[in-house]
Amino acid sequence: MHILICNDDGIHAPGIAALVEAARDLGDITVVAPEAEQSAVGHAITIASPLKVSRAKRNGAFFGHAVSGTPADCVKLAVSELLPTPPDLILSGINLGANAGISVLYSGTVSGATEGTILGFPSIAFSLCTFVEPRWDTAIRVARNVTARFADLNLPADSLLNVNIPNLPYEELKGFAIAPVGKSRWVEEFDARTDPRGNDYYWMDGVLKLFDDTGDSDVARLREGYVTLTPLHIDLTNYAAMDTVAGWQIEL
Amino acid sequence: MHILICNDDGIHAPGIAALVEAARDLGDITVVAPEAEQSAVGHAITIASPLKVSRAKRNGAFFGHAVSGTPADCVKLAVSELLPTPPDLILSGINLGANAGISVLYSGTVSGATEGTILGFPSIAFSLCTFVEPRWDTAIRVARNVTARFADLNLPADSLLNVNIPNLPYEELKGFAIAPVGKSRWVEEFDARTDPRGNDYYWMDGVLKLFDDTGDSDVARLREGYVTLTPLHIDLTNYAAMDTVAGWQIEL
Repeated sequence: MHILICNDDGIHAPGIAALVEAARDLGDITVVAPEAEQSAVGHAITIASPLKVSRAKRNGAFFGHAVSGTPADCVKLAVSELLPTPPDLILSGINLGANAGISVLYSGTVSGATEGTILGFPSIAFSLCTFVEPRWDTAIRVARNVTARFADLNLPADSLLNVNIPNLPYEELKGFAIAPVGKSRWVEEFDARTDPRGNDYYWMDGVLKLFDDTGDSDVARLREGYVTLTPLHIDLTNYAAMDTVAGWQIEL
Repeated sequence: MHILICNDDGIHAPGIAALVEAARDLGDITVVAPEAEQSAVGHAITIASPLKVSRAKRNGAFFGHAVSGTPADCVKLAVSELLPTPPDLILSGINLGANAGISVLYSGTVSGATEGTILGFPSIAFSLCTFVEPRWDTAIRVARNVTARFADLNLPADSLLNVNIPNLPYEELKGFAIAPVGKSRWVEEFDARTDPRGNDYYWMDGVLKLFDDTGDSDVARLREGYVTLTPLHIDLTNYAAMDTVAGWQIEL
């Protein structure tokens, strides 16, 4: 099995080394990842400037291809130009910080897997739910476990799997929960400042607000200590709303 | 009615002036848009650098607030900091080029409306399906018509409306079609080059491939001359796939 690994924290982030470690026994690995952090880039691609590619080392040995672009760029370029043969599986992560709730829409990590799905390859995104003291040992064991059994899941071809891992000792994990995306989101607060020449500028900051009432969402399950598995699709059509508006006949 | 207008082609693009013209009689308008083109940024937000805001003019008069960020940044900043009161409606566009099929996932124009939906405001994205010789007169009439009657559509709160307009004389439009997102997408071709110092780099290019078999998708309807109306939702969960994998009980 040939596995393509990307991320959005950048090729030098510890999380992508953890993901390589998790997948090491499962196939031949090629790493293609952004040369710099690309968090919150969503599904951006680079069309107005060229993509530079360089060879990145870790511990003195070749680790992977560093790309001057986004996670979606990395996957496109890998499949089109850098890989000798198409991958059997695409893994993205392991992200430092949860990609659950509305955050999924902004996630570069999820975007790497989304691009894999668009191109027709089985794809998984992994995130570890913490910004401090990450338990990579837990994340590695979970990522290996999910990746090894991914074929059993039989996800439809238009779906990727979004995996979030609580930052707990492995023994304290409650198990897997198949969970829908929650409605919790970061609520922005802007820090307004004035530069030395009198111009206004703003730093985006935010706090996570829990908007979920129900107990089965990814955000809620993560708080309970479950590893969440969420199938995401690439068709944004709200079919239920189409039924709602089917009678909306307007003329030009 | 207070209307916030944004786009992804930048505050100086002709399409946003067309959208202001379309909405002029329907309410009080505030324009908050990227200072530079942000096409294909997807749902990116700017967290690693501050957002600068300046006052942009058109024909010598104040036109709107130019932001050094993405469409999603513009909407967040407008609602949090720049508008005196929350908007009643958010319009994004009019984009030069279709946002139909898989392109929806990459679209900055759609992202502006997506951000409006996340924040709880009724939101519409408009795109004119051409890159050359745009018929802004047609687009303005359609955008005014849809905006004026948007309340009748009764879209659920978690949905935005994605509108694509064929580049035809108004009289040649076939009417409105409520259409799901198609599977057609741009297929990348990379143009590999070598810089004067011997480093490889790649320009992304692509051709639109039609993957749709069925005749009811947005891409197909647009080719027939219909203005397409597509409700998009912000919940990426593939609920059908959740049912599929409900029996997938795995242990850690």
